[in-house]
Amino acid sequence: MRIRLDIAYDGTHFRGWARQTELRTVQGTLEDALALVLGTRPTAEAAVATAQPRLVVAGRTDAGVHATGQVAHLDVDPEVIASLGRSRPRNGTGLDVLAQRVRGVLGKYADVTVRGISAAPDGFDARFSAVWRRYAYRIADSTAGYDPLERARTTTVNARLDEAAMDAAARSLIGLHDFAAYCRPREGATTIRTLLEFDWRRDAEGVLVANVRADAFCHSMVRALVGACVAVGRGRLSVEDAAALRDAGERTSAFPVLAARGLTLMEVGYPADELLASRADVTRARRDED
Amino acid sequence: MRIRLDIAYDGTHFRGWARQTELRTVQGTLEDALALVLGTRPTAEAAVATAQPRLVVAGRTDAGVHATGQVAHLDVDPEVIASLGRSRPRNGTGLDVLAQRVRGVLGKYADVTVRGISAAPDGFDARFSAVWRRYAYRIADSTAGYDPLERARTTTVNARLDEAAMDAAARSLIGLHDFAAYCRPREGATTIRTLLEFDWRRDAEGVLVANVRADAFCHSMVRALVGACVAVGRGRLSVEDAAALRDAGERTSAFPVLAARGLTLMEVGYPADELLASRADVTRARRDED
Repeated sequence: MRIRLDIAYDGTHFRGWARQTELRTVQGTLEDALALVLGTRPTAEAAVATAQPRLVVAGRTDAGVHATGQVAHLDVDPEVIASLGRSRPRNGTGLDVLAQRVRGVLGKYADVTVRGISAAPDGFDARFSAVWRRYAYRIADSTAGYDPLERARTTTVNARLDEAAMDAAARSLIGLHDFAAYCRPREGATTIRTLLEFDWRRDAEGVLVANVRADAFCHSMVRALVGACVAVGRGRLSVEDAAALRDAGERTSAFPVLAARGLTLMEVGYPADELLASRADVTRARRDED
Repeated sequence: MRIRLDIAYDGTHFRGWARQTELRTVQGTLEDALALVLGTRPTAEAAVATAQPRLVVAGRTDAGVHATGQVAHLDVDPEVIASLGRSRPRNGTGLDVLAQRVRGVLGKYADVTVRGISAAPDGFDARFSAVWRRYAYRIADSTAGYDPLERARTTTVNARLDEAAMDAAARSLIGLHDFAAYCRPREGATTIRTLLEFDWRRDAEGVLVANVRADAFCHSMVRALVGACVAVGRGRLSVEDAAALRDAGERTSAFPVLAARGLTLMEVGYPADELLASRADVTRARRDED
């Protein structure tokens, strides 16, 4: 039985999503909590490989990156879920009880939570069925002012940024392109992506918020795209430079890759249920990036 | 020369506003930063009483309470401010430079900041000229779901709360009343207050947000008012109980005083400039609470 987990975290004190020995990661923290509740907690090193739940995730976020709409899947024994449901008949289904108990293990004001757990539709793969990911990037410039209560997820830039120029630069990058200039290269991996949305606005407090949506992102791509826009907003690059650098196709020092702090994975898009399996097959065949 | 400071903080790691020996407080942290920049940092214990800047604040918040719109005043030597302005002629006025340098001392991602510093109008007293204070209280109940990125300023209640009943109870408390039932008593201090606004709504994420505005608040009053509404929202008190308990005039265990975590001072209201001094005289004569 495959389940879908909707996950949120403050990435500040995690070394990213992916499990690493000896380091605190989102995947490791969640898998340990799930193992405890599902009763598959390994009792010896030898048992880890078979017994440990292994989450498959839509967006493998870097150290310090946050999420409000992360999605993962996990294959579980349906009898274990049914038994959880029988253990607390007034608390909802077995999956409701699983979510409640995982939240209990994570703790009341934890920096990661499981917002919901549901039965995954046939053919669902959190990573390969996904058709798009949406990120937000938040910047407090000198116009906005700094809010200590938002500091965990907002990068501060000590200058006044021109949001109209940033928005124009962002929109000029939309479309199907080779984003090699905005990617940290990986051997044998394509850097061609479809950037579906990219725009900037100021929120009610004046904070600059980028909305960035693509079929998929290569490594550090959002933070590079946002860095180029900040260079435009400071007047160090022209609006036209953003697309010209992209078309030059090579990594450049003309703009910085911004800090993880400001970046949050907001949402992952999936096709209608009947298209999930075929979408996963297509993605798997094309590349193994997210 | 009197200056007005607009202040924001994440109260999590402060033992409240008021300076205390050996404990980290907002007042202590800000006064130390101001002393450093103004050049009045005491060099010996004996110098503290005279040389240390002393902030007067609109709302003396408790341990763990946050602020986005706190206001304080400070009397400074105009020559020191003028000299700060001359030291960085391209950075604005002397007060602009003061604010920039205080922020520099506090650090880039500090949990307290000075959002702005301005010359106070004649007769301005941050505490005694204030005509109202507005607080917000945020609660994530089981309908809203828990967001780790908002955990510093949101209390979690593990139940589904009835927001319509809470809003009705809140509105029933508005007006000029003796709020002794909702105050921690202080010897010789009145508990009569004018509650100007009190209502509940759910924000875009479903989080319950109380808006509470009064001429002034006695100690722990907002957290008691909010606690009574949560008891109503859980169905443990009726809507009518909120005002009936108030009119009984005695502290009760019928509802809890909620945690500081969810509470933020949003805004302080002052009268038009020409009324500042007379307002301060009236308030000073009437009581010394805030």
